[in-house]
Amino acid sequence: MIAEKNSITLGAFAASLCLGLAASARAQSPRPPQTHSPIVHANRTVTFNLRAPNAKKVELSAQFLKGNQPLTADTNGVWSVTVGPVEPNLYPYNFVVDGLSVADPGNQHLFPNERFKASLVDVPGDQPSLYSVQEVPHGEMRYCVYQSKTLGRVRPLIVYTPPGYREGKGKCPVFYLVSGTTDTEETWFKVGRVNFILDNLIAQKKAVPMVVVLPYGNMMMGTPPPTSIQAADMYKVFNDELTRDIMPFVEAHYRVISDREKRAIAGFSRGGGQSLFTGFNNLDKFAWIGSYSAYLTPEVFDKYFASAAADPKATNKKLKLLWLGVGKADFLYKQAVEFDDYLKGKKIAHQSFVTEGGHTWMNARHYLAETLQLYFK
Amino acid sequence: MIAEKNSITLGAFAASLCLGLAASARAQSPRPPQTHSPIVHANRTVTFNLRAPNAKKVELSAQFLKGNQPLTADTNGVWSVTVGPVEPNLYPYNFVVDGLSVADPGNQHLFPNERFKASLVDVPGDQPSLYSVQEVPHGEMRYCVYQSKTLGRVRPLIVYTPPGYREGKGKCPVFYLVSGTTDTEETWFKVGRVNFILDNLIAQKKAVPMVVVLPYGNMMMGTPPPTSIQAADMYKVFNDELTRDIMPFVEAHYRVISDREKRAIAGFSRGGGQSLFTGFNNLDKFAWIGSYSAYLTPEVFDKYFASAAADPKATNKKLKLLWLGVGKADFLYKQAVEFDDYLKGKKIAHQSFVTEGGHTWMNARHYLAETLQLYFK
Repeated sequence: MIAEKNSITLGAFAASLCLGLAASARAQSPRPPQTHSPIVHANRTVTFNLRAPNAKKVELSAQFLKGNQPLTADTNGVWSVTVGPVEPNLYPYNFVVDGLSVADPGNQHLFPNERFKASLVDVPGDQPSLYSVQEVPHGEMRYCVYQSKTLGRVRPLIVYTPPGYREGKGKCPVFYLVSGTTDTEETWFKVGRVNFILDNLIAQKKAVPMVVVLPYGNMMMGTPPPTSIQAADMYKVFNDELTRDIMPFVEAHYRVISDREKRAIAGFSRGGGQSLFTGFNNLDKFAWIGSYSAYLTPEVFDKYFASAAADPKATNKKLKLLWLGVGKADFLYKQAVEFDDYLKGKKIAHQSFVTEGGHTWMNARHYLAETLQLYFK
Repeated sequence: MIAEKNSITLGAFAASLCLGLAASARAQSPRPPQTHSPIVHANRTVTFNLRAPNAKKVELSAQFLKGNQPLTADTNGVWSVTVGPVEPNLYPYNFVVDGLSVADPGNQHLFPNERFKASLVDVPGDQPSLYSVQEVPHGEMRYCVYQSKTLGRVRPLIVYTPPGYREGKGKCPVFYLVSGTTDTEETWFKVGRVNFILDNLIAQKKAVPMVVVLPYGNMMMGTPPPTSIQAADMYKVFNDELTRDIMPFVEAHYRVISDREKRAIAGFSRGGGQSLFTGFNNLDKFAWIGSYSAYLTPEVFDKYFASAAADPKATNKKLKLLWLGVGKADFLYKQAVEFDDYLKGKKIAHQSFVTEGGHTWMNARHYLAETLQLYFK
């Protein structure tokens, strides 16, 4: 009978258990053996469980693993594997069931994304992590919608307001933070944990209180795969959306300082490219630019920002910070280094931050935490 | 090569396409044929697609279907089915792949839940639905955290503030809205769409501007399956959490009116039981109580609220509204009717609202929309 039940009804009939039905009624809707997953042990090993009685092969795919890890099934069709000890961090993972990638049904912490479905596992260290909820004053993440004239539709937006903003009156600097391809406006919140990282850094007096704006970076264009110039054309749409729609909305409804030296823009992956493009395209509006695991091609820079390259002294005077972070194992590492060398050649001042690891949200959070301690100082 | 890729990396390497790699680099990481799902057609039929080359059997489970609907595979291993025309509404659905229930990887609109993974499909009618984003002033959904002394941990909370609240100074009535078993604090937002429903009702002058508080209803208790008295004991924990932790937090940080006649509490499923229990337990704090697809057993009411039953005149004087909604096909219908009859017998005044349909979020939204037009009037 359970096999016929679809998962949606589980919530409903589980409700009956809490509403307190008579034993007879309970007997009519037996509860399936529930699997808890993931289970993080004290020694930082992690057990993953999935109930899939009909599966032939179940694997764990996680960003702390080199390759996929096979799970083994018990007689109830519950597949399990224990891995680690795992280096403390917040990791995306998913199961691969007979080749199909699925989120962990036992885990409510999902990776917001347009396409793939993954879950999140937090492996804490001896000290509380910077992205964890600590006993400090907390800000708010405000979900709102705005009308985009550029795209002709209503679009979602998330705005972080720092501790005290709710009760206060003063204005804050504003940081526009863009996520990557197939990510949504929620990804820097649910995976990037920008709110808890900032709550903690502000409490430690390592970052200044600021408003952070998370746009939905996908401009609904871009198949077939674009050339670098086509990609830049997509960046132009983001540039328009941000400067004509998002920034006016934010400045009309939130207490932010309308001053280039109090505006930053950065992003991860495609969001990094969009931030570099929009930042250099609007040096009159942004004094702080961050690129997390991203780059622009010399081809694009020459086409769009020749004047910035032609007068590096003037450009460097405008830029309070141009920050470029990338991991040595990032599949974009070569292009990121090429962009870095290009900027050196053009004498455009910037900070380079090279880490271990690849094109991951662990690195994205790392670069965010580093730069949050630099912006607006 | 694609088969080896885990889904998490897809976002990253798709990023490369937008960052504009050379054609040679693109050739090294070919993009899998992307499936779009769901596709809602003008005639309100809906096509669902899932890429699962190794699956033996794929079914669609959706709350607009009587039973599961089989999908058929093409030569690329993309499974599809077109169903309907479907009655306009916002529906949860999932795929069942060889017996495993999974969310639709092609759809970013997920059903927030502790246990099951489902997706949401919106089938619009000729007129914009009440839960849709319309061109009206919009409120905000504010994600925050608070310290729970009752449970000894930090807990999440979402607060809806109505249009104008952000810029205004005045105080609002406050409505505590609780979701069901295995739901999270996000479910009334992402599935219930309370924010857009209220934005629209306020614009139509059918509801008064109010603050809505979405607690996380799971008190982390409740296995093994409780008896009705054990369930009530869980309700007591929720009662303490709400009155000792959540309400003080809300009244300290949001501009809400501290007056029983300006406080409402309601919920769906287990949340309805928690709301009935907490409401009757605190008639000095709440004048408006709503039960959406829920009930209390006479056994529980007699044990905890004998005094309310003993003096119905005094109870009715305190209750501005006791509202009970349930669907005829709800698996709790019998218990809900028993509670309704019990209240009639006790001469406790209430409004009964019986609809078609079952224990679904389509009904939960319907009951919410009905009662939002009654509260605080």
